[in-house]
Amino acid sequence: MSRALKELDDIEAIFAALAHAARRHILVVLNARGGRVSAGDIAARFEHSWPTTSRHLKVLLEAGLVSVERQGREWIYVLNAARLRSVTAGWLSWFEAKEEKHVEAGHRLRAV
Amino acid sequence: MSRALKELDDIEAIFAALAHAARRHILVVLNARGGRVSAGDIAARFEHSWPTTSRHLKVLLEAGLVSVERQGREWIYVLNAARLRSVTAGWLSWFEAKEEKHVEAGHRLRAV
Repeated sequence: MSRALKELDDIEAIFAALAHAARRHILVVLNARGGRVSAGDIAARFEHSWPTTSRHLKVLLEAGLVSVERQGREWIYVLNAARLRSVTAGWLSWFEAKEEKHVEAGHRLRAV
Repeated sequence: MSRALKELDDIEAIFAALAHAARRHILVVLNARGGRVSAGDIAARFEHSWPTTSRHLKVLLEAGLVSVERQGREWIYVLNAARLRSVTAGWLSWFEAKEEKHVEAGHRLRAV
């Protein structure tokens, strides 16, 4: 797959994942708790039934916004905040204000 | 409505609007054409039938991402890029990298 097609796929998966309030909430909670939360803690934190929460986690996993690892007897969900930031920022950069672009260019010049 | 509830409503409406590739495409095209495009030009630009495009435009209107104005005999769709930027950036700011925060703080200090 070309790089451009891969980017389009990433944008599609991530904006679809962000469309549901429950999934945005899971991401915010994961982030607030340092980016790593056990399945048990996620289940306890959310009012939804586990099958519902699990379905949302599956969408986040497929979008690459979280991963899951075994740690002893527990499954730990791990936030991929870098991917969330880079893919959303990539698409939103189309809409940067012209003034902001000048300010950023100024920062870059000073940083050189 | 409290300010916090208004922000949640904005986030919900805008991420729901961004979930569909056709709506993201309309926003990018509006932006590329200077933020103002007639209904006729939008209809000509997209392969979808006008009822389908019109339904997507309605979602964008309801989310406040575009507005529509009469100009002579035409309807002009107007992009609200500032709202797109501010609402998405507001939610995504939860996920800022700590290093980036330091860099920004450095910029602010130098700017004082």
